[in-house]
Amino acid sequence: MAIFNNKNKEALELGFGSKNYSNRVRFLDSNGKVNVHRAGMGIKNLDVYHWLITTSILNLVLVIISSYVLVNLIFAVIYFWIGPQNFGGLDAETSSQQFINLFFFSAQTITTLGYGHIYPTGNAASVAAAVESLLGLLTFALATGVLYGRFSRPRAHLLYSNNILISPYKDGKGIMFRIANRKQYELIESEASVTITLNNLESKKREFFNLKLEISRINFLTLSWTIVHPLDEESPLFGLTIKDFKERDVEFIILIKAINDTYSQTVYSRKSYKVEEMVENAKFKPLTPEANKNGRVRLTVTDIHLYDVVKPNTNVS
Amino acid sequence: MAIFNNKNKEALELGFGSKNYSNRVRFLDSNGKVNVHRAGMGIKNLDVYHWLITTSILNLVLVIISSYVLVNLIFAVIYFWIGPQNFGGLDAETSSQQFINLFFFSAQTITTLGYGHIYPTGNAASVAAAVESLLGLLTFALATGVLYGRFSRPRAHLLYSNNILISPYKDGKGIMFRIANRKQYELIESEASVTITLNNLESKKREFFNLKLEISRINFLTLSWTIVHPLDEESPLFGLTIKDFKERDVEFIILIKAINDTYSQTVYSRKSYKVEEMVENAKFKPLTPEANKNGRVRLTVTDIHLYDVVKPNTNVS
Amino acid sequence: MAIFNNKNKEALELGFGSKNYSNRVRFLDSNGKVNVHRAGMGIKNLDVYHWLITTSILNLVLVIISSYVLVNLIFAVIYFWIGPQNFGGLDAETSSQQFINLFFFSAQTITTLGYGHIYPTGNAASVAAAVESLLGLLTFALATGVLYGRFSRPRAHLLYSNNILISPYKDGKGIMFRIANRKQYELIESEASVTITLNNLESKKREFFNLKLEISRINFLTLSWTIVHPLDEESPLFGLTIKDFKERDVEFIILIKAINDTYSQTVYSRKSYKVEEMVENAKFKPLTPEANKNGRVRLTVTDIHLYDVVKPNTNVS
Amino acid sequence: MAIFNNKNKEALELGFGSKNYSNRVRFLDSNGKVNVHRAGMGIKNLDVYHWLITTSILNLVLVIISSYVLVNLIFAVIYFWIGPQNFGGLDAETSSQQFINLFFFSAQTITTLGYGHIYPTGNAASVAAAVESLLGLLTFALATGVLYGRFSRPRAHLLYSNNILISPYKDGKGIMFRIANRKQYELIESEASVTITLNNLESKKREFFNLKLEISRINFLTLSWTIVHPLDEESPLFGLTIKDFKERDVEFIILIKAINDTYSQTVYSRKSYKVEEMVENAKFKPLTPEANKNGRVRLTVTDIHLYDVVKPNTNVS
Repeated sequence: MAIFNNKNKEALELGFGSKNYSNRVRFLDSNGKVNVHRAGMGIKNLDVYHWLITTSILNLVLVIISSYVLVNLIFAVIYFWIGPQNFGGLDAETSSQQFINLFFFSAQTITTLGYGHIYPTGNAASVAAAVESLLGLLTFALATGVLYGRFSRPRAHLLYSNNILISPYKDGKGIMFRIANRKQYELIESEASVTITLNNLESKKREFFNLKLEISRINFLTLSWTIVHPLDEESPLFGLTIKDFKERDVEFIILIKAINDTYSQTVYSRKSYKVEEMVENAKFKPLTPEANKNGRVRLTVTDIHLYDVVKPNTNVS
Repeated sequence: MAIFNNKNKEALELGFGSKNYSNRVRFLDSNGKVNVHRAGMGIKNLDVYHWLITTSILNLVLVIISSYVLVNLIFAVIYFWIGPQNFGGLDAETSSQQFINLFFFSAQTITTLGYGHIYPTGNAASVAAAVESLLGLLTFALATGVLYGRFSRPRAHLLYSNNILISPYKDGKGIMFRIANRKQYELIESEASVTITLNNLESKKREFFNLKLEISRINFLTLSWTIVHPLDEESPLFGLTIKDFKERDVEFIILIKAINDTYSQTVYSRKSYKVEEMVENAKFKPLTPEANKNGRVRLTVTDIHLYDVVKPNTNVS
Repeated sequence: MAIFNNKNKEALELGFGSKNYSNRVRFLDSNGKVNVHRAGMGIKNLDVYHWLITTSILNLVLVIISSYVLVNLIFAVIYFWIGPQNFGGLDAETSSQQFINLFFFSAQTITTLGYGHIYPTGNAASVAAAVESLLGLLTFALATGVLYGRFSRPRAHLLYSNNILISPYKDGKGIMFRIANRKQYELIESEASVTITLNNLESKKREFFNLKLEISRINFLTLSWTIVHPLDEESPLFGLTIKDFKERDVEFIILIKAINDTYSQTVYSRKSYKVEEMVENAKFKPLTPEANKNGRVRLTVTDIHLYDVVKPNTNVS
Repeated sequence: MAIFNNKNKEALELGFGSKNYSNRVRFLDSNGKVNVHRAGMGIKNLDVYHWLITTSILNLVLVIISSYVLVNLIFAVIYFWIGPQNFGGLDAETSSQQFINLFFFSAQTITTLGYGHIYPTGNAASVAAAVESLLGLLTFALATGVLYGRFSRPRAHLLYSNNILISPYKDGKGIMFRIANRKQYELIESEASVTITLNNLESKKREFFNLKLEISRINFLTLSWTIVHPLDEESPLFGLTIKDFKERDVEFIILIKAINDTYSQTVYSRKSYKVEEMVENAKFKPLTPEANKNGRVRLTVTDIHLYDVVKPNTNVS
């Protein structure tokens, strides 16, 4: 087994703490979501807007429809309690049909549709309808904000290679993964930082290191970017094998920062690789973008996953 | 009493001025709000949008409801002044009920609900209704903006430890406080700056110093961050005791800057500690986040307040 | 007359060009608006959104009302051309009253008010109404954006001292002006840059210099900030008097950059001083903010304009 | 032919890859749009918001109108399928006219216009109308967002000179182009970066170099900015002629970064020049902005295209 190489390299405080967990830990899940649940303050730990912005479309649609039905039910109850005789045009013979019609009247009021074939005549009914239409406008104002916020949220739609490779690199080895933009907008001034976390088997503490990258910044991310950490003597991982990585419950935490040029805004993307996603003695296949006669280049972004197995100890410069 | 240590350290211009106030001063209140009222320019000192964005929900609801009632009253007066005979469907026997119905008509117009059981027939009434509906759309446009602005305003929801401690640190002492994110989103690239302000007892001027931090930047604020100012010989506070801090009306002014990753935007948080919140000979209890079998970590953020009393002069490395 | 001091100081390219204008030039007006009209590309030089966002409230209201009237007139003409017989509830005896009622119908349609006492019956009328209501929604969407954009636009509401002074400073003199925030929000990490432009009397070229500032960055702008350029030997203005400044048609161009903490966004403020606003042998009165018993400080921001006349050649450290 | 000058200059990884395309390649089209089509992930390569924000106004109008017609058709079919007898006020003799009226009813519902001369009576019809009005509000919320996003998107409206010149510069030559802002807002703190890409005729690889600029940052872009790369011995292009540039399929990739002061936001502009746009032995005509009596300067921005032919080997300092 390789000796853990730690000359001139101090474990860093990166905000994850230094506790050595008895269970295996994954600080970020594979999609880059931080794997921490913060509790202890009840409702003050909740973040409604964040949830609405980041939850799935399906969840959002369910929340919107349920709220719509619920609010209309509540107002139908109020209108019914005020009394159907306070409404004009409520042509219904049974009480239940009256209630149903008041439910529809509520829907026509909260959306400010207001056909007017049903309309409030009594004062209490008119007040309730005036309140409901105000509530409707304000609620849909918020819904507008949430929908717009979701739709327009600046993001980096990065595709990461499925695997992180230990590849031949110059005269030695390097740890490599690839990223590409899977959308048609451009990412400018992309920067990468790679942090590794592993258990120190001696001190029984969880340690964190920033890995030095061959190139940590590129001007344009038009095609793909192979991010390389040279496994040279300066690396805290020098000499470690996949078996060592496994023993130490290693995790690669990747943070990419770039400018999304649709929004002219800085965007972030995170990714985590665990030892299961590491492949030794492999190297990425070169991408083969094709330029057509007009000089337009076509790139199959999923090709960034592809790699070839190479013989151990083969050095490719 | 310790001699005030000022070698190579000049008081800084930090934008607070250098006046020595006769009353005790708190530049920032405990929540980080700056404790200054700017006056002298009448209406030009007002900042309506800022107020609407930062006031309590209750205040905002009161403002919205009052405005809604007020505007409808104004238009009801206008419609009544134009004359109830200019409206169709205004089935009311008394003048006061006519006024009330015109009030409801106004509400149905400004929200663009428009049931139509009451409707303008005369030209003046139609003009007023056309104006009111335009006004309604524009006003609710602004309300949309304010609600959305409040809801989506990027913020750092930081929890600060209740106390700032003078703790054993390496071979000496350090001033320490802890922060944690109480929400589920992530803060990236957090930076801290700590300023101290105190009265110079000799020059009778208020002085400001930036305190050097052990670590002033972390990549991720997933768990908590203990921010430490070493009380070494380079510190302007070297050798001061809580009694000294009290005499000088000391205030710690903290500014945290981070990227909120829901919005990909830089956010700021401020906090102030006064001497009442200082505790000597204490150190923070280590946090005990637990990882469940899926590797998901649960953190009780309020634990950052907890500290243990330690014996004076005990050094813990 | 002092010799123009230009050792080690090269005129800079600051984006204003180096033409020596025969008329007097003011690159920025007193409020910081750049005094350049860009032409030559017809409609491509127009910037509708910028105009709508930055024009006066009065102009905006006039534009909105005119557009509203105009669009309704156009649709009234269309409806009238389709024929009044295609509308139900159009109770009018004269053609002109029919036209007026169709105008109001248009207003009720474009705002989606839709009372319904007038309604389209023919297909052409219904199509036109469907188009108008769609147009209305989209137009008010844009109006929402413009109003919100105006209201929420992050700005620095800085107050600049009326005058820029040549004051005693340390053992010599300095050029000084003061700024304060006139609103209740906070400005963080404020930075100042001061550029001077003057005619080089020998080369007949307009030259630009960045002036070195005593302090060019402050953490908080809670009270005021006196920005000082020391007139020492390193200054390109060393030894110049107001008479010299006048001969060279001098202009001070000031750019302040800060973080507005309501929006957590960087904001900019510009200001220009010409020689008419310079005062020699004067120094700013210290501000006298008062702290009440709760430690809350009250500042009269207009006090930043105040200065005292001092004897020439008097040095105040 | 000049020897390719490559001392101390390494080709850079700029995110375009290093493939040597057999066809001619243009990485950016003349307007700065990156000439890459990313594929391989089907729907995950699509970016609806980006398309809606950046497509032409005409495309957007077509999409909006088509969607409006389509959705109303779908709901008309649903209403017709529910049965015309479930609607009040549907005065039509033929089935096709009933369908047409239900189409108009749908338009009045989805826009929340709701005249009410046609109205749902049955429960199924009322449910469908309640759903349609909710859908309408949410869809127009999104449309509001898209329209606002397009209108308010911070951009740099830069005009680039039609040509990139090889001009006399100091004692040698320089590569020069000019930019100007064609709008009335201001660009602050503009920065330029120029990358050149060419085929290395020996290694058969595509190489990228960042070109050193005489000045890479200006405070204000009020008039114009001539961006100059000195063709001195440090330049990787030293000694190359237009013929050499052609052989190597050269492309100049320009990235301008600035603060748009209407939005206080960083904006980006890109531009590409190919060899066809290069002119040897030419230099830009000085701009002649005129200042009127009020000191207001008028600039014809299209003058930045103008250049004079100069004799080869003429040096103008």
